[in-house]
Amino acid sequence: MPDKISKVDMEKIVSLCKRRGFIFPSSEIYGGLGSCWDYGPLGVELKRNIKDAWWRAVVQERDDMAGLDASIMMHPQIWVASGHVEGFSDPLVECKVCHLRWRATDLNGSSCPDCGGELTEPKLFNLMFKTFMGPVEDEASVVYLRPETAQGIFVNFDNVLATSRKKLPFGIAQIGKSFRNEITTGNFIFRTREFEQMEIEYFVRPGSDEKWFDYWVQERFNWYLKLGIKQENLRLRRHGKEELAHYAKDCYDIEYLFPMGWAELEGIANRGDYDLVQHAKHSGKTLSYFDEEAGERYTPYVIEPSAGVDRSALALLIDAYDEELAEGETRVVLHFHPELAPIKVAILPLSRNEKLVPLAREVYTKLRRYFMMQYDDAQSIGRRYRRQDEIGTPFCVTIDFQSLEDNQVTIRERDSMGQIRLPIEELVKTLQAKLSGESFATQPLWTAKTAEASE
Amino acid sequence: MPDKISKVDMEKIVSLCKRRGFIFPSSEIYGGLGSCWDYGPLGVELKRNIKDAWWRAVVQERDDMAGLDASIMMHPQIWVASGHVEGFSDPLVECKVCHLRWRATDLNGSSCPDCGGELTEPKLFNLMFKTFMGPVEDEASVVYLRPETAQGIFVNFDNVLATSRKKLPFGIAQIGKSFRNEITTGNFIFRTREFEQMEIEYFVRPGSDEKWFDYWVQERFNWYLKLGIKQENLRLRRHGKEELAHYAKDCYDIEYLFPMGWAELEGIANRGDYDLVQHAKHSGKTLSYFDEEAGERYTPYVIEPSAGVDRSALALLIDAYDEELAEGETRVVLHFHPELAPIKVAILPLSRNEKLVPLAREVYTKLRRYFMMQYDDAQSIGRRYRRQDEIGTPFCVTIDFQSLEDNQVTIRERDSMGQIRLPIEELVKTLQAKLSGESFATQPLWTAKTAEASE
Repeated sequence: MPDKISKVDMEKIVSLCKRRGFIFPSSEIYGGLGSCWDYGPLGVELKRNIKDAWWRAVVQERDDMAGLDASIMMHPQIWVASGHVEGFSDPLVECKVCHLRWRATDLNGSSCPDCGGELTEPKLFNLMFKTFMGPVEDEASVVYLRPETAQGIFVNFDNVLATSRKKLPFGIAQIGKSFRNEITTGNFIFRTREFEQMEIEYFVRPGSDEKWFDYWVQERFNWYLKLGIKQENLRLRRHGKEELAHYAKDCYDIEYLFPMGWAELEGIANRGDYDLVQHAKHSGKTLSYFDEEAGERYTPYVIEPSAGVDRSALALLIDAYDEELAEGETRVVLHFHPELAPIKVAILPLSRNEKLVPLAREVYTKLRRYFMMQYDDAQSIGRRYRRQDEIGTPFCVTIDFQSLEDNQVTIRERDSMGQIRLPIEELVKTLQAKLSGESFATQPLWTAKTAEASE
Repeated sequence: MPDKISKVDMEKIVSLCKRRGFIFPSSEIYGGLGSCWDYGPLGVELKRNIKDAWWRAVVQERDDMAGLDASIMMHPQIWVASGHVEGFSDPLVECKVCHLRWRATDLNGSSCPDCGGELTEPKLFNLMFKTFMGPVEDEASVVYLRPETAQGIFVNFDNVLATSRKKLPFGIAQIGKSFRNEITTGNFIFRTREFEQMEIEYFVRPGSDEKWFDYWVQERFNWYLKLGIKQENLRLRRHGKEELAHYAKDCYDIEYLFPMGWAELEGIANRGDYDLVQHAKHSGKTLSYFDEEAGERYTPYVIEPSAGVDRSALALLIDAYDEELAEGETRVVLHFHPELAPIKVAILPLSRNEKLVPLAREVYTKLRRYFMMQYDDAQSIGRRYRRQDEIGTPFCVTIDFQSLEDNQVTIRERDSMGQIRLPIEELVKTLQAKLSGESFATQPLWTAKTAEASE
């Protein structure tokens, strides 16, 4: 393996993301829009892969989980019941001179950081985005953009229970956009006003909640490890009593060591029966569970593992990033787990030779049905390897003049830069096996060869 | 094949969707929220499968396409440039007595349909949802929820072009939520205020646009056929000159024969250079393309195939629905293309026998890695087949007492109700082959056997 030569900082990630088409500033030609970002051709694949990996792990491969996709706009009474209308707010102060507003907890002094003017007393500012449904803009038509996907799950508890025929313990999993009108955003896609969540509400018998809480903390921590995030960059942090949300009995954050420090990647909370009780009270409907084995009816307790898609993407980009010394040159490489890599395989004809190109195109077309691919015939083969390294493509397939004679091609592996040669008809099967190998992240498939010198 | 006994109506679809967990009314325990719907455990899988099929067809398997995922909130100036602030509106009239508002074009008489009161003159009402970003609710902080995903593509044209290294003709594809504050909604998930789009903007050299327009009309029409929609329920309808949007040179709708009549499933428009020219003008940035082969710079023309995820889901549900007479009983069946079926394989032990269950669980666990599965051991095998038919599961695997001796199981196919028996170790490979077979929809894999009588 090549030597690492530097530690990543955020600017390098932002720059790579822009340069290679992972993430662009939203509305960039109009000067951008505060903290909004657009996922480019590679970013959208990375995000899809993260969401698919999550869905596979928590829905497809589990017996005790049902999926859901609730709407972003929900009945406004839901946010009264959940406590968001009353309590989801930040204290703001306003400068009496320039009228800029500041989050009171962000200020060190007692005057305006911008003009030095006197500040008002703090006033509560609700973080939900508000809009109006229907033609009349009045109180009766107010709807909110959901600040979390969780409530969409709670209000569908009965519908999912009845139609999925699940028994406790079971969970409901959902991926979707949420919106928070944060005053302080930043650190690239770490804290944005529009973001995507992957949330589970796992319903259990009261009394068994602590056991399931521990289970999910471990389970979710391991998920990040399985995706290839380095153990030394992950930690668990338990919330102090004073830090717990009003609904939470207990809470752990899974934190990642971002360039700006340790910060939350996912929170796992024991919400008790708070949400179901609140919605039962406010809706007048019964939200409980009849336990056939125990012969009793009760309101389930809820364990909530709540992850961010954008934060996961950022952590995975940072964790995968390396600058290495290879053959006297620096190469930038993203060591993505193959399941997450936006492009799985690149097809590289040695040159734009009229005999090589048709064979290369044929291989490309044949493989495209199975993998997300790129075809690249521009510039030297070494430059092209570097381009694929930089976007984390696990495998490059090179077609050379020998291929025309023996119908064999070279596969070059990203991390080790090792190469093997094999018949074209074995490509799909070999690549499928290598791409699905869970051991990929820890065990290099080949040892590096001096073949790289020919780059 | 069994006999069909009835034609589908919308109420049957709505009822099936609620009963089996495809689609629930949003916020139902609070009395619902106008035209908002939540996708339940099966609906979310159907929707995922539709989106994945589209992404595979238009992004993964094409050389000339890049993906994108732009944010829902964009710079408000974008909607000025696109014409939405000025022109995306409906004329409304208000009743002077009861103050209800009506879409002028929906009214037949000149008085309020509700109370008979006098109506005001029509006033334009913008269909974009408006909200405020940041702590101050004033004109400077207004942002809109995008009414279409298209503009997110146009404003990223340069970013995608530069990073993807594509050459014209090429397209940008995007899936995401859009929001329109429609006055008149309805027909289940056909017209809702929050909906999901699958949009392509395909950039071509001016002069070649008519050829590419024809190409995409055909390509997109065929996509619905490939998904198994019956040809007699699909048609193309060209927009009349008076019907064309101000930006469109030409437009076709792909229409489906819904229970309420023919209605738009997807629109394919030739937008000319309208959008890029508008954004260049309003942003002050150059949005054009240097054509190396032609040696000239020009603003590309754009062909836009714009499809709705929710409408596709509705059409696919309706088209797949059948009530058939089988063995003297009515069975409800969804003849989904296997790629779209929410559940691919169900594992059904003949009974809850203590020897059958461990083997059935073993098979279930083994297959779950590959397919979205269900395990069902409740009630008679016939009832369980019916439950799987009703949600469109292509294959049921039955484990019986013979299986304990010969390690073979029975696969029962949904449409023909035919059965075959095969060794457990061949299950994954056989099911993979059958599930990926494009011929599935047209060619029954087995002929019906009297084995069904044992149900």
